[in-house]
Amino acid sequence: MTAGTAPATAGGQEDTRTRLLATALRLFTEHGVEATSLQMIADALGVTKAAVYYHFKTKDEIAGAVAEPGLRELEVVLEEASRLRRRGARVDHLLSGFVDVVVRHRALIALFARDPGVTRALANSWSEVLSIRMMELFAGPEEDESRVIAAHAAIVGIALTGGAPQFAEMDDDTLRGHLLEVGRRLLGRPRRSA
Amino acid sequence: MTAGTAPATAGGQEDTRTRLLATALRLFTEHGVEATSLQMIADALGVTKAAVYYHFKTKDEIAGAVAEPGLRELEVVLEEASRLRRRGARVDHLLSGFVDVVVRHRALIALFARDPGVTRALANSWSEVLSIRMMELFAGPEEDESRVIAAHAAIVGIALTGGAPQFAEMDDDTLRGHLLEVGRRLLGRPRRSA
Repeated sequence: MTAGTAPATAGGQEDTRTRLLATALRLFTEHGVEATSLQMIADALGVTKAAVYYHFKTKDEIAGAVAEPGLRELEVVLEEASRLRRRGARVDHLLSGFVDVVVRHRALIALFARDPGVTRALANSWSEVLSIRMMELFAGPEEDESRVIAAHAAIVGIALTGGAPQFAEMDDDTLRGHLLEVGRRLLGRPRRSA
Repeated sequence: MTAGTAPATAGGQEDTRTRLLATALRLFTEHGVEATSLQMIADALGVTKAAVYYHFKTKDEIAGAVAEPGLRELEVVLEEASRLRRRGARVDHLLSGFVDVVVRHRALIALFARDPGVTRALANSWSEVLSIRMMELFAGPEEDESRVIAAHAAIVGIALTGGAPQFAEMDDDTLRGHLLEVGRRLLGRPRRSA
């Protein structure tokens, strides 16, 4: 194998897909999702549009794939939390895991929030299912109305405040601490717990 | 003047504008903002497209005019709040006034939230200025980071939870009580105050 040429194996395709997503994310960040075309992504990668089509049929599919790692992390946190026995421990684990995911992916949240077409493309899908499961775990099985409202406010408040452009310069640890406090207040959790 | 014919006076034009906005709101609610055209609004009103153009040049302008009453009410609440001397009283007045506006206009928030193009059209404008003034009044002059974060979470949490489709059937008073509680917890205000 000559150095510098990618082999036409599954590994090579995987590599193209990874480079494609990294390039798409860079272009999305520079121009916004709406103003980025499949052709622009192909040009930046130095491949044909057909090569992009091989991996993704639409820009929404690319946006979904860019969001996938964050949603997968959130799913892991949800599964860990739901295995805990005490309700308080479940809420605390989900809250801190959710805040971690939001802080880690806040540039992506900011990006998607300013390009609402993407948010719509992601809705009614995986992210929708995850947010329903989060609501259930935060609010508990009693279907207490005030808890359901507080859980909803906590989820949107944490996600959209974490992704807000005006806090983009705040360092991760500081932001994480403040968002945890938002969640604790809304969900009625004490500051120190397991 | 014959009954049933509108006179071509300022009063008549004002009446057409009012009917136009009511019709636009009805069509927006039925079809979504994106799927509603100026032509559809003209047809539903039984006027020409030129007659619609006389009042509004774009659909975004119509959406802005539909949002205007709610924004105006919020501005009044902000002005009342900023005239109060004690910080606690200012926060409490703005919180309860904001919750009232959200509950009163929650169908509109739900409508705009599912048609994100509208949200974008309204951003960087009046609603943006009002939300900055709300943040300042909620967070206080000390620029305390945790207060600024809590204020941001309170504003988006209350607005998007109040406008969330899953709570559309909840009666106004119940929703108002729960949203006030969300704000009180985040802003650290006691349940009973002036």
